[in-house]
Amino acid sequence: MKQVPNRIILPEEMMPKQWYNVRGDMPEQPEPLRNPGTGEIAKKEELYPVFCEELVEHEFTTERYIDIPEEVQELYKMYRPAPLHRAYRLEKELKTPAKIYYKYEGGNTSGSHKLNSAIPQVYYNKKQGITNLTTETGAGQWGTALAMACKFMNIGLTVYMVKISSIQKPYRKAVIETFGAKIIASPSDTTNAGRAMLAKDPDCMGSLGMAISEAVEDAVTSKNTRYTLGSVLNQVVLHQSVIGLEAKAQLEMVDEYPDIVIGCSGGGSNMGGLMSAFMQDKLTGKANPYFIAVEPSACPSLTRGVYAYDFCDTGKVTPLAKMYTLGCGFMPSSIHAGGLRYHGMSPILSKLYHDGFLDEARAVAQSKVFEAATLFAGAEGILPAPESSHAIRVAIDEAIKCRESGEAKTILFGLSGHGHFDMGSYISYQEGSMVDYEPTDEELQEGFAQLPKIDVQ
Amino acid sequence: MKQVPNRIILPEEMMPKQWYNVRGDMPEQPEPLRNPGTGEIAKKEELYPVFCEELVEHEFTTERYIDIPEEVQELYKMYRPAPLHRAYRLEKELKTPAKIYYKYEGGNTSGSHKLNSAIPQVYYNKKQGITNLTTETGAGQWGTALAMACKFMNIGLTVYMVKISSIQKPYRKAVIETFGAKIIASPSDTTNAGRAMLAKDPDCMGSLGMAISEAVEDAVTSKNTRYTLGSVLNQVVLHQSVIGLEAKAQLEMVDEYPDIVIGCSGGGSNMGGLMSAFMQDKLTGKANPYFIAVEPSACPSLTRGVYAYDFCDTGKVTPLAKMYTLGCGFMPSSIHAGGLRYHGMSPILSKLYHDGFLDEARAVAQSKVFEAATLFAGAEGILPAPESSHAIRVAIDEAIKCRESGEAKTILFGLSGHGHFDMGSYISYQEGSMVDYEPTDEELQEGFAQLPKIDVQ
Repeated sequence: MKQVPNRIILPEEMMPKQWYNVRGDMPEQPEPLRNPGTGEIAKKEELYPVFCEELVEHEFTTERYIDIPEEVQELYKMYRPAPLHRAYRLEKELKTPAKIYYKYEGGNTSGSHKLNSAIPQVYYNKKQGITNLTTETGAGQWGTALAMACKFMNIGLTVYMVKISSIQKPYRKAVIETFGAKIIASPSDTTNAGRAMLAKDPDCMGSLGMAISEAVEDAVTSKNTRYTLGSVLNQVVLHQSVIGLEAKAQLEMVDEYPDIVIGCSGGGSNMGGLMSAFMQDKLTGKANPYFIAVEPSACPSLTRGVYAYDFCDTGKVTPLAKMYTLGCGFMPSSIHAGGLRYHGMSPILSKLYHDGFLDEARAVAQSKVFEAATLFAGAEGILPAPESSHAIRVAIDEAIKCRESGEAKTILFGLSGHGHFDMGSYISYQEGSMVDYEPTDEELQEGFAQLPKIDVQ
Repeated sequence: MKQVPNRIILPEEMMPKQWYNVRGDMPEQPEPLRNPGTGEIAKKEELYPVFCEELVEHEFTTERYIDIPEEVQELYKMYRPAPLHRAYRLEKELKTPAKIYYKYEGGNTSGSHKLNSAIPQVYYNKKQGITNLTTETGAGQWGTALAMACKFMNIGLTVYMVKISSIQKPYRKAVIETFGAKIIASPSDTTNAGRAMLAKDPDCMGSLGMAISEAVEDAVTSKNTRYTLGSVLNQVVLHQSVIGLEAKAQLEMVDEYPDIVIGCSGGGSNMGGLMSAFMQDKLTGKANPYFIAVEPSACPSLTRGVYAYDFCDTGKVTPLAKMYTLGCGFMPSSIHAGGLRYHGMSPILSKLYHDGFLDEARAVAQSKVFEAATLFAGAEGILPAPESSHAIRVAIDEAIKCRESGEAKTILFGLSGHGHFDMGSYISYQEGSMVDYEPTDEELQEGFAQLPKIDVQ
């Protein structure tokens, strides 16, 4: 048999021309969004001041396939198809009979898969005549991706960046500004929400919840402006399906199919995208891959959260979503994987997990994650993002199990991004100053007690 | 005619299996290295304490092709072949009829083409039974690449990092340490050279010349240890030929051939590699592409230097090489493209330039370089390294000339690396605090006056 190459490259003409919408094959739909005031099911029109109309459509649709507009396909071609790597050197290092594949989404300047949803979000807004977008950013990957997409399509962008992040991460800020976006440190004096916070505490260093409130307020009060979000939403899981569609086609090129599919999971954009095409096989009975979503033990929404209606933000301005949540007031400790510090989980992934299609969630401690990241970098030559390294940790653990059992399983994991802007956390690992943290049961109960009381079934 | 894809991907099986040695086709050879004490032509044996024997062979050989060892080919496959991009969006932005292609070497964690020579250098040392390597690093790209290669082949590495760089660039240091190399801030108390310097000035922040002296001393006085260098040397130009060999094969896949080939040029590793296969065509009369080497106006070795024998280092411990030089004592101003701050130029490139085969050298000011870098990032979605952006500047200038003349020339330039670790310089550009600098004629004359007086012809 011909040897599988180190990197399996999909020909450009084989790139997906449609997104796959897992809702089209789910036996039961995720619970709908609800109005936080009335508890009623939210109508599309209620979301129009916040999101452009076609994206609201993506939020609600159960169509199985959605055409990817040609302009979006063209922009995808700037950095896609993303390579699928066979991890020969990692397999050798682990002395495992397992075959390990990883889909690498870090080969673009935003450094992660976030661009896959940023491009269509900007495209549909532009098509509707929207001239400005707002968003918030903490770690900065979404902010960078959105700034790139806005620059490509020549549309304005204001990024509310958590003040402490804008101070601690001047390089991320500089990348975003290179792509022409305007950055406002949050809390700011440009919104009511920001001014109220500054009146209370002039030295406030901000939070993601605060930044969301400002970005949404800016969007709904400014002319021709809408808000965007890089995770959690159904539309994001839809757009990110290109990851899994490509990965499946690439594995087919070498006659492979995964026994296990592993992805890190914060709001669900990466895991939802990676598993898409394989989940379709599971939902339709064509195959039965085993899915593992990996989350930080410091922010364990799937493994220790409850499945309930909750706000999507800490500021409590968004509709309610039924999801696995730690409570919207949950403040994760300052673990370094900023992209995984979210109290909830995509409603789609939550439903799939609740119904047993997403087989397992596993929480891992960050020191174990960085141990895996360092091992991976040395073997494969790619310095992974802390978020992605959660998936690496579990892929390595599963490969070691195969060594012990002698099984030659095929493992696919998502390498969602590179760690070039995360060296501060590597330094803390190397210096031995990295602390593992898990919330206590009491802390979690406190969060659950704050959940909105309008959980209609 | 079929549309050229955005990224032209060479199939893995078409990767070069031999390096191309331009010396095999040069009508006159570059001048030989000379012993700095006697002025005599250096013998291979004189270099054995510093470099392993096969690499000394690469330094001297005029064989046209050298087989790439299979193990090196396998390691290349971790990140090669590197994509060739068609810059459709940049062309559109510039409204130029020119067809612009760029060979992107930044798709690996070292962030540049440096890994192409790091891997064979480590391989041949390991093969000879060498157990430890030394090198110096300033900007950090070479140090990272070598640390990766040493990790892949399990051989020890000590990197002497200019002390001020190790303080200013903790992230680069952390990347190198992630790959298991030992970093010593230079000047250090581990070598005679370092101790002497510290005795004179305990607060000395170091220089590249100082770090070279320490790395070489460490190599020649330690057991089973050799020194390595990421540019200037003939062996480096040889190994980097994979860039041009791949680029030529990729252009052939879409029936193209460059009218103009543009690369940035510090010590010559990138430009030498990019032009390799095309230079062969020129030397053998098969084609006549126009070559432009781009250098910073702050360090203009080709455009304003003299062609003379000089030391390769500021510490004056190396053999003498005949090259375009500003004098080994020349201290370039602190322009941000650290990789281009070298007083001399590869003897091979110097000879080709002197004899008119390398058609043109062009010096550009850094503010113009960052203007081009920002334009390029916005159009193509890749944040370029400051070094590579020198080539971008000239590629854009040539494309604008085509717009004015109406000529649809085919332009190939080398995008040697990404700028993820160079955001400090982007910040200085965005803040408007970037200063352009050119040495005065008097400063240059001062450097030339210091050239060694043993310039035998």
